[in-house]
Amino acid sequence: MSDRSLIFPASEFRRRIRALQSEMARDGLDALLLTTPADVYYTTGFLTRFWESPARPWFIVVPATGDPIAVIPAIGAALMGRCWIKDIRTWSAPDPVDDGVSLLADALSETVPASGKVGIPMGLESHLRMPIGDFMRLQDRIAPRRFDDGTRAVYRVREIKSAAEIAKIRATCAVADAAFARVPEFVRQGLPLAKVFRDFQVALLQEGADWVSYIAGGAGKGGYGDVISPADERPLQAGDVLMLDTGAVRDGYFCDFDRNFAIGRASDEVRRAHAALYAATDTALAELRPGMLARDVHRVLTDALLRQGATPGGGRLGHGLGLTLTEWPSFTPLDTTELREGMVLTLEPGVEIALGRILVHEENIVLRPEGPELLSRRAPEQLPEIMG
Amino acid sequence: MSDRSLIFPASEFRRRIRALQSEMARDGLDALLLTTPADVYYTTGFLTRFWESPARPWFIVVPATGDPIAVIPAIGAALMGRCWIKDIRTWSAPDPVDDGVSLLADALSETVPASGKVGIPMGLESHLRMPIGDFMRLQDRIAPRRFDDGTRAVYRVREIKSAAEIAKIRATCAVADAAFARVPEFVRQGLPLAKVFRDFQVALLQEGADWVSYIAGGAGKGGYGDVISPADERPLQAGDVLMLDTGAVRDGYFCDFDRNFAIGRASDEVRRAHAALYAATDTALAELRPGMLARDVHRVLTDALLRQGATPGGGRLGHGLGLTLTEWPSFTPLDTTELREGMVLTLEPGVEIALGRILVHEENIVLRPEGPELLSRRAPEQLPEIMG
Repeated sequence: MSDRSLIFPASEFRRRIRALQSEMARDGLDALLLTTPADVYYTTGFLTRFWESPARPWFIVVPATGDPIAVIPAIGAALMGRCWIKDIRTWSAPDPVDDGVSLLADALSETVPASGKVGIPMGLESHLRMPIGDFMRLQDRIAPRRFDDGTRAVYRVREIKSAAEIAKIRATCAVADAAFARVPEFVRQGLPLAKVFRDFQVALLQEGADWVSYIAGGAGKGGYGDVISPADERPLQAGDVLMLDTGAVRDGYFCDFDRNFAIGRASDEVRRAHAALYAATDTALAELRPGMLARDVHRVLTDALLRQGATPGGGRLGHGLGLTLTEWPSFTPLDTTELREGMVLTLEPGVEIALGRILVHEENIVLRPEGPELLSRRAPEQLPEIMG
Repeated sequence: MSDRSLIFPASEFRRRIRALQSEMARDGLDALLLTTPADVYYTTGFLTRFWESPARPWFIVVPATGDPIAVIPAIGAALMGRCWIKDIRTWSAPDPVDDGVSLLADALSETVPASGKVGIPMGLESHLRMPIGDFMRLQDRIAPRRFDDGTRAVYRVREIKSAAEIAKIRATCAVADAAFARVPEFVRQGLPLAKVFRDFQVALLQEGADWVSYIAGGAGKGGYGDVISPADERPLQAGDVLMLDTGAVRDGYFCDFDRNFAIGRASDEVRRAHAALYAATDTALAELRPGMLARDVHRVLTDALLRQGATPGGGRLGHGLGLTLTEWPSFTPLDTTELREGMVLTLEPGVEIALGRILVHEENIVLRPEGPELLSRRAPEQLPEIMG
């Protein structure tokens, strides 16, 4: 496996690096410094759950031309060695005296002219996954080279998914489709939500998820209160609406969509809310096109909900999807990102049924020239009722 | 639930905040700014898997006196409102114009005198979970107040676990104990490692994990190659050693320990390596005391392995444990952190059987005045053999 990654062929990574280098040239960046799990996997194929340990930083340097340099803790050398990356420099981390800073400063100094600029993602939705004290030391060490904003270059490339990436996300969506189809097998009145959350994760694993990085949900009479709280021990009751949402992962790619279930008969109020969400999603599936802006999608969904007589919920109504559970852009009134062919997106309208009672609905799509193509199996038009 | 968090009573959080404020006073810090899931949960009780979305930053300000201020995206208001925090300030995130920076600058300016210092964790094993561009803007906005290193204050408090925290970690360890006991039910020759990883995660959930943030492992003839790679489809074969490692989570607290299994009969070489690891762990369990340094534990384990005629593996041989899979200190030759009563730690010796073939062994402990108390059930002295 000397010239291929574990999941994609080297050609996929070379194409990504060339695309990044093209955007870097446009922004006058002589290198990119990448530190997050998604950016490291995207450029190298290095995929591990070991990121869960905050102990060690990991660095990828993308030069203006040529292949990336990996500056990483020695514990990752074997795995990185099976990826397509040739220039791998390691240190024994964590090192309280010099945790890779000298090694990284050398790599940047070799790669970037003294008057040059190193791009790092520093904009909305980004963070730098290294100690900020070490970042300050690094700034001093590489001077007069300086850091500059690399957000646009990275986002512009990563937001367009290749055919291989779309296939991965589609496969993860299929895992969740299969798990959602099994919900009536393990959900019934009287079960605590915490048990439902566990059983749903089990179903996702059994249907092929490598791991389950995210599930969320809610249950409440005629709607739920919020969608980010952990499950509690309250038993499901007739009249509840149960929502389950998932970010399952397969080959490093996420899905992110939810499904609703009525426990017993759904009230007319809940049916109307569900119908409004379904119709608004249909409208977006019909109307989205490359060239629209992210904020236009917010308007399309909001207007469609209003036409249905529903009260749109607050917050964003969808977002990008891929290497993380959520990616830019965001379907808010403020996001002016242009939609482009090959973006993988979620459509996530929500309605407020009453104060503190909401209903949400989510699908995953890839944007084609002629409009959205579903990656998730379309939710049933009628809210499923679990009568057991 | 107006005056209690979802998992601990408010008194637990008040004690934590007082301890932080005492350390802040020692370091001349007028506030702490906290941004990571672990620090936010530690100070507020706000526990959610929603951190998996990188879209939004979350801020907790711990003032020199009084209760913390939460400056958070509106989507978290309901959950934070059920915690013990009273001062909750929200904005509609993600906002490309001002993603909470003004709101946070106001909170810091109210709390910290103009000549004052705001501590942030910036040392080893830390990172700042917000866009670094926003951090730079925040520096300008709160000037002449300035940021300073808050690492020591945070680590010094968080590294000592309360009785309530130790009970939580013990409960998570018990989940993993029960799942490890079931490994012989779902592991046999011919199964691919990827299926074993899935089934192990299922067992952890069925035994009571809320979620499984981390599993790792390895399998290979007479030892495995590395311990952070994802599972592949290679079937288990007689002569393999299988290792499974877990960071299961319950109530927000991790366990982190592994177990080894021989597939078929273990070779004498593997038995000797396992015996050496077992004996070295026994030595550490007998000898660790408060007042020793982290590097002393590295020496104790390494010396014990050498006495057994084994070749100690590289890297760290254990670490802190609690709100994240790994916490400071690290059992390396360089870490001079003093061990103190109430620290929860892992003992993780490794041996190199041959080039590219290792065996590792891990237990979780809490350090008492008289030495370590096991939180994981001690691994079997004889390497279990799975004959099916």
